Amino acid sequence: MLKEEQAQAMLKAAREHAVQLGVRVNIAIVDGGAHLLAFNRMDGAMLGSIEVALKKARTAVLFPMPAEQFGEIIRHAELTGMEHTNGGLVAFAGGLPLHIDGRLLGAIGISGANAEQDKAIAEQAILQIMG
Amino acid sequence: MLKEEQAQAMLKAAREHAVQLGVRVNIAIVDGGAHLLAFNRMDGAMLGSIEVALKKARTAVLFPMPAEQFGEIIRHAELTGMEHTNGGLVAFAGGLPLHIDGRLLGAIGISGANAEQDKAIAEQAILQIMG
Amino acid sequence: MLKEEQAQAMLKAAREHAVQLGVRVNIAIVDGGAHLLAFNRMDGAMLGSIEVALKKARTAVLFPMPAEQFGEIIRHAELTGMEHTNGGLVAFAGGLPLHIDGRLLGAIGISGANAEQDKAIAEQAILQIMG
Amino acid sequence: MLKEEQAQAMLKAAREHAVQLGVRVNIAIVDGGAHLLAFNRMDGAMLGSIEVALKKARTAVLFPMPAEQFGEIIRHAELTGMEHTNGGLVAFAGGLPLHIDGRLLGAIGISGANAEQDKAIAEQAILQIMG
Repeated sequence: MLKEEQAQAMLKAAREHAVQLGVRVNIAIVDGGAHLLAFNRMDGAMLGSIEVALKKARTAVLFPMPAEQFGEIIRHAELTGMEHTNGGLVAFAGGLPLHIDGRLLGAIGISGANAEQDKAIAEQAILQIMG
Repeated sequence: MLKEEQAQAMLKAAREHAVQLGVRVNIAIVDGGAHLLAFNRMDGAMLGSIEVALKKARTAVLFPMPAEQFGEIIRHAELTGMEHTNGGLVAFAGGLPLHIDGRLLGAIGISGANAEQDKAIAEQAILQIMG
Repeated sequence: MLKEEQAQAMLKAAREHAVQLGVRVNIAIVDGGAHLLAFNRMDGAMLGSIEVALKKARTAVLFPMPAEQFGEIIRHAELTGMEHTNGGLVAFAGGLPLHIDGRLLGAIGISGANAEQDKAIAEQAILQIMG
Repeated sequence: MLKEEQAQAMLKAAREHAVQLGVRVNIAIVDGGAHLLAFNRMDGAMLGSIEVALKKARTAVLFPMPAEQFGEIIRHAELTGMEHTNGGLVAFAGGLPLHIDGRLLGAIGISGANAEQDKAIAEQAILQIMG
């Protein structure tokens, strides 16, 4: 199970990369049961992207792959209704699962910048732990 | 924070423009936290557009841009699931945020006429305050 | 069906009585189908009472009696689960139906002050129409 | 509006007091519009208390008073249905609003220990800012 200390390290790495990119985002980290571990909203991040960050992280645990990859599967396989399951999924870039030694430990969701930036920020947080 | 007096002035300006256009709409005004400030349904406005107006206003605070612009982003970037976040977003013309001196004070949502008319009515309300 | 003009007159009468009492409330008016007609939040009214006002009005149409009277019925008759029906009912003072010539035209919901004050404000609005 | 830096200082103060008490809690901080700013789950805190912490903070903004005081009002005044409004309120000790110079800036919600401990932890966080 992901630890508080690891979640804080992920938050910190994500925040630093957002500052480098000059964007303001919401950062959400969940454990392997998709339950919230840590969250931080940077000053000026859009209110609507709070829930988007939370749901990207949740989605990346429930369907453990990069969230945009899951979005492609939903659209290409015409999985009608899929995004309405589990209280609402968010399936575009910015959600990433954290696997260590083949075990799913948790996930991170980033929202507030554009999709590529959100994803790059999430990747930095994952690298921080995988490193 | 948007004041009651400003919200009433926005309602009045929106209503007058709707009368000029010969349409009957629902008018919703929210504060910078997306909480309802004022609402008015004109006689004959469709029942279904009550919630549409409320959600256009809410969407334009949560993602502070004209609602139809947000709709284009959702569609073009294939943001699968985005419109189902935050209790349901409405991302087409008729929702406008109100920025003064770079601060997001609130938003207005209009629904009941066609999209262009809804937007024109919202613009008159915003101009009333920006004026 | 309740008209826009009547709803506005009710709003105005409610607002004036709230000012007289020195309280700040949310005022919601719905038609005979429990659909929103008009709403106004006075500066300083609690955010949480927005939905309470809306639901008091809705409850007073769905179960057309003073909302606190419906609350007594729920509690005394042990109507387990009743308040969770219809999207959530609010059954305490401050919601009043509007009957004219035996027909249910709509209702008003007031929230933000104490229960007695909320009710007194709603009564003034009803009297305004009953004349 | 409550700033990220202040929210982090509140989190830190709350966490330190929880460590002193030897308890493991969830800590949630929201802004004056009841939108999430920061969250932290300590290792071992109960999963079910995640949402309780979030809703205590939300409740303490929507009805700006200590959450247990609001609970007393709900019970004593028989406000049937009140706790089901606003997406579900949590009205017992551990939620506190943050007022500075008479303005409601946000709130904190603590859950995971017993009610008195939750409240004491919330108080330390508020004092950190009021200081």
